[in-house]
Amino acid sequence: MLKIKKIDHVAVAVTDVDEALARYRKLLGVEVTDREVVASQRTEAALLPIGETSIELISPRGNEGLQKFLEKRGPGLHHIAVEVEGIEQALLTLKALGLPLIDETPRVGARGHKVAFVHPKATGGVLVELVEPAHEPAEA
Amino acid sequence: MLKIKKIDHVAVAVTDVDEALARYRKLLGVEVTDREVVASQRTEAALLPIGETSIELISPRGNEGLQKFLEKRGPGLHHIAVEVEGIEQALLTLKALGLPLIDETPRVGARGHKVAFVHPKATGGVLVELVEPAHEPAEA
Repeated sequence: MLKIKKIDHVAVAVTDVDEALARYRKLLGVEVTDREVVASQRTEAALLPIGETSIELISPRGNEGLQKFLEKRGPGLHHIAVEVEGIEQALLTLKALGLPLIDETPRVGARGHKVAFVHPKATGGVLVELVEPAHEPAEA
Repeated sequence: MLKIKKIDHVAVAVTDVDEALARYRKLLGVEVTDREVVASQRTEAALLPIGETSIELISPRGNEGLQKFLEKRGPGLHHIAVEVEGIEQALLTLKALGLPLIDETPRVGARGHKVAFVHPKATGGVLVELVEPAHEPAEA
């Protein structure tokens, strides 16, 4: 069983992070706290905190999957990320359950966190990311 | 400026709530807390709490917009709901800012909450719902 702490972020695919930030600031009055180019995922990302979670605006910087998503469906909701304790063990648990994974081992994502994606087949259509903050020790 | 407290839920459109619940239970180990047919929105809804927010699985029970979404895009992320203080005032504020609203006054949604939808044009592609819990008094 996964040890889930919270929804870390809800990601929105956008074509232009600056334009999207202006829209979300007008609607929600929230300000960006982190913004970076995430080399490992070839994206640009900006985080808008809301309560214990965030909206993450992402645009492609060479990420072909995200580029195709935008071309096919236009800007919109892209994935949900849940914070787990012990991401390596979590991935082994999901694999043992027979659930399809995109990443069998974690990569380094935004903010230096360990991240791994579960295939949308697992949920029947929603892309789910597992996240473990870099500053927390993984549990065995 | 809106007074936003948290993301109340992230909604996922599904064709079969029971089948989706089984998938999410297997992946995330979470259990449903509320399940109901929401007459005002002509949907069936089930809530899976994660931290301070929830994943809401919704399927159409006469809701044509949701039915079309499923036919066009298949099951997937549908909208984000944010909890606000004073939903009537929030809607007036957004209207004064020139933002396009689907509901200019609140309706009764799941769990008896007051809800109103902002048009996805406001964000450039994401449907956003405002929610105010029924048990909290609205601020003037």
